[in-house]
Amino acid sequence: MSREADVIVVGAGLSGLIAAREVLAAGLEPLVLEADERVGGRILTEEALPGVHLELGAQWIGDTHHRMEALAGELGIELYPQFEEGETSYELDGRVLRGEAFHSAYGEDMAGVERVLRTLDRMAAEVSAEQPWAAPHADEWDRITVGQWYDAQGLSPIARSMLEICTVGILAVPTVEVSLLGLLVNVVSCGVSADLLSESEGGAQTRRFIGGTSQIPLRLAAALGERVVLRSPVLQIEHAPDQVTVTCRGGLVARGRRVVVALAPTLAGRIMYDPPLPGQRDQLTQRMPQASALKAFAIYDEPFWRADGLNGQLISAPGPARMSNDSGMPEDSGGPGIILAFLEGESARVAGAWPQAQRQDALRAELGRHFGPRAAQPDLIVEGAWVERQWTRGCYNANPGPCGWIHFGQALTAPIGPISWAATETAAAWSGYMEGAVEAGQRAAREVIEVLT
Amino acid sequence: MSREADVIVVGAGLSGLIAAREVLAAGLEPLVLEADERVGGRILTEEALPGVHLELGAQWIGDTHHRMEALAGELGIELYPQFEEGETSYELDGRVLRGEAFHSAYGEDMAGVERVLRTLDRMAAEVSAEQPWAAPHADEWDRITVGQWYDAQGLSPIARSMLEICTVGILAVPTVEVSLLGLLVNVVSCGVSADLLSESEGGAQTRRFIGGTSQIPLRLAAALGERVVLRSPVLQIEHAPDQVTVTCRGGLVARGRRVVVALAPTLAGRIMYDPPLPGQRDQLTQRMPQASALKAFAIYDEPFWRADGLNGQLISAPGPARMSNDSGMPEDSGGPGIILAFLEGESARVAGAWPQAQRQDALRAELGRHFGPRAAQPDLIVEGAWVERQWTRGCYNANPGPCGWIHFGQALTAPIGPISWAATETAAAWSGYMEGAVEAGQRAAREVIEVLT
Repeated sequence: MSREADVIVVGAGLSGLIAAREVLAAGLEPLVLEADERVGGRILTEEALPGVHLELGAQWIGDTHHRMEALAGELGIELYPQFEEGETSYELDGRVLRGEAFHSAYGEDMAGVERVLRTLDRMAAEVSAEQPWAAPHADEWDRITVGQWYDAQGLSPIARSMLEICTVGILAVPTVEVSLLGLLVNVVSCGVSADLLSESEGGAQTRRFIGGTSQIPLRLAAALGERVVLRSPVLQIEHAPDQVTVTCRGGLVARGRRVVVALAPTLAGRIMYDPPLPGQRDQLTQRMPQASALKAFAIYDEPFWRADGLNGQLISAPGPARMSNDSGMPEDSGGPGIILAFLEGESARVAGAWPQAQRQDALRAELGRHFGPRAAQPDLIVEGAWVERQWTRGCYNANPGPCGWIHFGQALTAPIGPISWAATETAAAWSGYMEGAVEAGQRAAREVIEVLT
Repeated sequence: MSREADVIVVGAGLSGLIAAREVLAAGLEPLVLEADERVGGRILTEEALPGVHLELGAQWIGDTHHRMEALAGELGIELYPQFEEGETSYELDGRVLRGEAFHSAYGEDMAGVERVLRTLDRMAAEVSAEQPWAAPHADEWDRITVGQWYDAQGLSPIARSMLEICTVGILAVPTVEVSLLGLLVNVVSCGVSADLLSESEGGAQTRRFIGGTSQIPLRLAAALGERVVLRSPVLQIEHAPDQVTVTCRGGLVARGRRVVVALAPTLAGRIMYDPPLPGQRDQLTQRMPQASALKAFAIYDEPFWRADGLNGQLISAPGPARMSNDSGMPEDSGGPGIILAFLEGESARVAGAWPQAQRQDALRAELGRHFGPRAAQPDLIVEGAWVERQWTRGCYNANPGPCGWIHFGQALTAPIGPISWAATETAAAWSGYMEGAVEAGQRAAREVIEVLT
């Protein structure tokens, strides 16, 4: 019931596992404590049918996710491209329209969306992801919500609706819950707005892992061996300048010289710290709720929409899914057809609370409207809901509300005594993505390695 | 290390103590577990000098706080009126102006404030404090922030500033952090806007307790005797339909048939529940941060401002205190003069983070501007900061951000199995005040008594 190590890592999500790996590579002993009965955190591959891997959590990497690309290479996991060919189906004005028809009907509206994205990029240019509170307009931009700012951009209803859908696609909360500065932090952390907020999230979602994303945490954990302990929710962290004592539910006590807390901020805030953490840190973690996302996979015998010239993507105002894509296996695998429907933000909350039959009926009807009657009859629907999962409590990630960045942002990554902070929310690049989880884990590991070696 | 009772109460703040008292009165055995080494929660009287009671926390009751009035009567605690005579000092346009001069210069601006308060009262008339999400305009009003709505009311800069100061005086966060619906819940919970948002908070702050507010929790706890256990932070609540097992740091395990969690929502959310709570409840407690307030008492040999025709109240845009009042002892006691300076919302965060000497220098200078050179030389300044207190983590209370009420509000008071929820945040009347703490404690007690007797 007692373990010793140099560095205790709380959380065996990607960020924690990476931190532990780096610590070990530096000649120090890590010990990873995981609350759940599995590793991976927000990465969770489910083999719904033999050889059919559904990513209930993190699914893609983008073209510039070099840390993830290198990691996959090291671990011997191969990539395949996201299927993108064909037209998207739109439902923004009551009708269902295919890409070309939609764009010729609403070209001017979409130009409005483009204009706003360019404005966001100009604004983001003055924001640093490491110190958003230092941006010249930080004080102004952290006091207006994204929704409020969008409303003031002179957009047509169709353009405003499109922008809401695409933004909720990354924030996974209504745009009135996040400040404009908060959105700009996301934009600058990920490059340019078009990579993040355009219909296809082009830059962020281009490739997947053959065999499933879960292989990554599983292989990382395998290399750590008995240094990863499952079913050990951390209740308390006692800390002194060069000493930590971490107590788990069930009685395990882990002692070390440093601790890396690799949990989403709201979960990190639930641990009892002794001595207690400074007020600024505590107020921050009270203000970074996990977002609301639910993925629903509709599985068919084949991806019949491809032959029909459709890419499996929908953009829909009525929902319940506001976006979707083709989440099939590699093209030459002859696998089934899979449409992944995203319920994000309000949709996840409202339709997520419906009885499953009601939600899936609505989803089938929606898929039928977009991809034809065959789409209304999937063989199987598999849902991945994260709010109910005790050790995650929401996806994809967390953004503070208004004034959160300017008043409390500095506490997000600043170490406190022997405590360092990881998790994708603390990343400067690609925060919210696997790439960010790796970056944050590496940065936290550097902090502890520098003082311990 | 093991105790049994019918009802375990978590938290010996006012709400928890009232719940325990009601449970005991109904012939059932309560057991109160308190994390801190004292009872009272956000009630904390400090005897700064012999006979001089400073209320670092809850200080007043209002004219319609009948539950508190009755409680004080039962406990044999006498009341005395808040000193109100004289003029308020204003600093909204760079100058310091006394009441009459200010109102004759800015009568039109203040009429604008009054107009907005009347509008709020009209809107509040359609909101129920028990079910704010059911209000006809709930969906619209929960998606705009109070600050955004104020900005759209065509107010002069002076009027807008006044409204911000008075509103932050109750919310203790910038008005852009709370939705309009959230403000209306506060208004309807407390009667009319003028009782809450006017300069003097007339209705809510009319009387104080001779000898200090802390007498109330102390006497309630004394009557409960060994049924109150201090220094027992709750780590975990295991629950089944008619059974709860509550585990504290230090090893105490308390078993009962029901549990009343009488903690602010954000603190209730830190406990590990087994089985885990529904996602809606968890997402709610991720979204109800404790606000930011700091009280600073400046103590003088006598209340010299009274002879000068001033009531000890200031309204100041530059701050650091945006409001103040005369917090002296009863008029005939011959006690010292005490100005209570409120640092709330942004002031609490910004000036609260300054070194104490810098903050108190700024405060002395401000008091001097308003109440004369003598006010710049207090004998003593005593501060009550709540964000740093581990078992409170912010004052005065908590409000959810945008969409919080419409998407998660129903989880605030709804019992979950054998778990009931108390604390002033869960009250329908005078939420945020001691009156609300009592109401909520009584309501939670009723829930458990009904099923257990």
